[in-house]
Amino acid sequence: MLFDTVSSHQKSTLYEQVAERLACLIEQGALKPGERIPSVRKLHKQLGVSLSTVLQAYLLLENRGLIEAKPQSGYYVKARFQKLPSESNTSSETSYATWDSINQLVMSLLAASCDPHIVPFGAAIPGAELFPTLKLNRLFTGVSRRLGKQVNTYEVVPGNKLLRHQLARRSLDWSSGISSEEIVTTAGCMEAMNLCLRAVAQPGDTIAIESPTYYGIIQMISSLSMKVLEIPTHPRNGVCLESLEVALKKKQIKACLFTLNFNNPLGSCMPDDDKKRLVEMLARYESPLIENDLQGDLYFGNTRPSSAKAFDNEGLVLLCSSFTKTLAPGYRVGWCVPGRYQAQVEYLKFITSVTTSTPVQVTIAEFLQSGGYDQHLRRIRKTYSEQIQCVTQTIYDHFPTNTQATSPTGGYVLWVELPKAVDSLELQRLALAERISIVPGPIFSAEDKYRNFIRLNCGYPWSPILEQGLITLGRLVRSFSF
Amino acid sequence: MLFDTVSSHQKSTLYEQVAERLACLIEQGALKPGERIPSVRKLHKQLGVSLSTVLQAYLLLENRGLIEAKPQSGYYVKARFQKLPSESNTSSETSYATWDSINQLVMSLLAASCDPHIVPFGAAIPGAELFPTLKLNRLFTGVSRRLGKQVNTYEVVPGNKLLRHQLARRSLDWSSGISSEEIVTTAGCMEAMNLCLRAVAQPGDTIAIESPTYYGIIQMISSLSMKVLEIPTHPRNGVCLESLEVALKKKQIKACLFTLNFNNPLGSCMPDDDKKRLVEMLARYESPLIENDLQGDLYFGNTRPSSAKAFDNEGLVLLCSSFTKTLAPGYRVGWCVPGRYQAQVEYLKFITSVTTSTPVQVTIAEFLQSGGYDQHLRRIRKTYSEQIQCVTQTIYDHFPTNTQATSPTGGYVLWVELPKAVDSLELQRLALAERISIVPGPIFSAEDKYRNFIRLNCGYPWSPILEQGLITLGRLVRSFSF
Repeated sequence: MLFDTVSSHQKSTLYEQVAERLACLIEQGALKPGERIPSVRKLHKQLGVSLSTVLQAYLLLENRGLIEAKPQSGYYVKARFQKLPSESNTSSETSYATWDSINQLVMSLLAASCDPHIVPFGAAIPGAELFPTLKLNRLFTGVSRRLGKQVNTYEVVPGNKLLRHQLARRSLDWSSGISSEEIVTTAGCMEAMNLCLRAVAQPGDTIAIESPTYYGIIQMISSLSMKVLEIPTHPRNGVCLESLEVALKKKQIKACLFTLNFNNPLGSCMPDDDKKRLVEMLARYESPLIENDLQGDLYFGNTRPSSAKAFDNEGLVLLCSSFTKTLAPGYRVGWCVPGRYQAQVEYLKFITSVTTSTPVQVTIAEFLQSGGYDQHLRRIRKTYSEQIQCVTQTIYDHFPTNTQATSPTGGYVLWVELPKAVDSLELQRLALAERISIVPGPIFSAEDKYRNFIRLNCGYPWSPILEQGLITLGRLVRSFSF
Repeated sequence: MLFDTVSSHQKSTLYEQVAERLACLIEQGALKPGERIPSVRKLHKQLGVSLSTVLQAYLLLENRGLIEAKPQSGYYVKARFQKLPSESNTSSETSYATWDSINQLVMSLLAASCDPHIVPFGAAIPGAELFPTLKLNRLFTGVSRRLGKQVNTYEVVPGNKLLRHQLARRSLDWSSGISSEEIVTTAGCMEAMNLCLRAVAQPGDTIAIESPTYYGIIQMISSLSMKVLEIPTHPRNGVCLESLEVALKKKQIKACLFTLNFNNPLGSCMPDDDKKRLVEMLARYESPLIENDLQGDLYFGNTRPSSAKAFDNEGLVLLCSSFTKTLAPGYRVGWCVPGRYQAQVEYLKFITSVTTSTPVQVTIAEFLQSGGYDQHLRRIRKTYSEQIQCVTQTIYDHFPTNTQATSPTGGYVLWVELPKAVDSLELQRLALAERISIVPGPIFSAEDKYRNFIRLNCGYPWSPILEQGLITLGRLVRSFSF
């Protein structure tokens, strides 16, 4: 039988061993993408293990994104993202981000995003027309008339009371409720994560991140003289908990920084049960989790995914978010719920940027109080979802057939795997020459990965200009010989 | 003669040797505070050196704050600040700020500053009534009507163009002119300094600072895992260049962070000629200077002091400032001119807080363009100066006679030396129990210094409540037995 080589000192259960062996077969190409794998009943007979063991193994593989169930047909090796790095061979390596090598590229991407003549598939910035700016402007006028001089006084940490009160009210959407005293407002989500990182870790420490993950996060960690350890991440279900536990057991990491709801660029969303498992696991290892929930409100389904913070009994989860992607890109208003690290985060906020700007905090508080936020969120969720559909359809129509794209269930970015021959760094240069901005895959990792991947921003309302830009991009992709 | 022990390999000139010897006599108490020192003519005969050598030596000692000239009377050992640490025995010691030990104190000071029932001599926050907030509110309404959705778009680094244009126009006040392309806007001056520090130094590096200096600066440096070296600083003329050069020669420091115009808490202002010398010296050692010019516009004299940046030909000066103390405490809008470190600062800004809030940037740009800023500055300079006079007078009327206070020529804080028996940390607790907020001296140093010093905020318009608070404080000072 298959399992005679599995030594008894390994603690994995039988179904994990079955899953591991099948994963190896897939990895080695013995089972190819799209190929049907043996039925549960057949493997049960073949291996001499119970039906439920095989079923559990298949569910595990499905969770890891290696196989997929097709109704009334059976299990198949997943065609997309078969290149998801296996847990075993990546989680054991620590990799260091090379900060200087990519900063110029990042800054040029940002510059391109400011140029209205460049097709905006690059920086993950939504179109300005999606936001209720005129209403915000009116609200500011009203609130400044009412508050007078108060809109120009220091809002000392933890931040504006009205805003924290509104945030606390909304926290029931993603947790069992947070009190306003637990919230610290910040200049956007990036500042929140920066402060939380500095509260939980020191220079030289290693932070576990998803692979791939938003390049700004990798660079922020590097700029604080910390290291990153990339944990394999499934495009649908998020970071691989088994790999993470390996790293925790080896004491390789000081803290985690994960985007569990709609990771940028993957769009992955960790199931709530897995979030609970994650939080429990981290509690066992006393390891803090910085949870980037920037995109949590941008779900396409019927219910908002929970936050990991919702399962946090130990104060080890530091939730970070902002209004940048949902309401006010120009305002720079974010917040965090730093749990047991609150005193450190408040202190770091004070000695880093003192306080958060008052007029923009009170305007957003007023907007939340006015009651239009949920209606607005419903509208932009629908818009983002439709824009992603349009981009996906155009890719399928105009890109080589072996192009793969994620099917995110929230957010507004697509992660696209191009044929292997495509060098996305070169593609980015070619595209920019045609006045099209994209983000090449390699900067979403500190390792040499994702060379034939790109991320596409779907934050702008679909238009003939975007469509033509994508068609041109498809032509450029085809220009790589393969 | 006095100088037979001075070895010839020392590069100091004869007058510096004379000054050094006299400084030693003062230091050792051989010449006591208030005592008349030998006349220039007498010392010229006694030492066998030229009249001009003695005169130069006396000017040097005067510059260092050790002696003072009294018209038609001669030179006297200065009574105030005789405890200014001598250059030789402090600049050679590196001291480490103990971050955790004082953060609670700092945060409680900040909390006190928010309580309208506490007399506000603590945190250096000006009274809200000094600022043209209603005009700012009106301008925001107008500018948002004109710009519409643009006030809610990302102002990607280096920041809002209108604001940078206005800042460039004003830069003629403190330099020979800076172009708008050289300016990066930030969330206040603290963020500007934080980014500049991270651009020029790494964890483990040592940063030279003035002693005393604003506690937030000491704590910011420590929070970045950098060390501080405190350079003796004269209450009138600023940081001691001779001490600084000793540290530079010994390669003890990576960079400097100085507040040359109206240091907080000293109120010292380095003469422009010395700024030029400072910049030239730092250029010789290739050492960057982060210049905190937050208070530069708040001079009480007829002309604005220059910035060190004005003398910078090498791009080694990183000027930082903001509108927090002059126009809009609640807005959190600052900027920096990072010289040769501009690319790094822009990059760090992007990965730390992405961009600066747009609505507050455009509102301040609009205010600057509207032309009322100079008139407003004249008014608040006059107000601050008068408030300092009132506080000073009340101290002289109600504090023990051996209390000393600075005579700042700009800014709005006073640095007060109390009788030696007073423990300012204890005084702060006693005062807070009487609902009076002050800042104890020790937190302005990472070394164990300034125990009998306090800083008083004079940012609030003089009132019977402030007067009564100071009288009570004087009574508490007297309660220490001496």
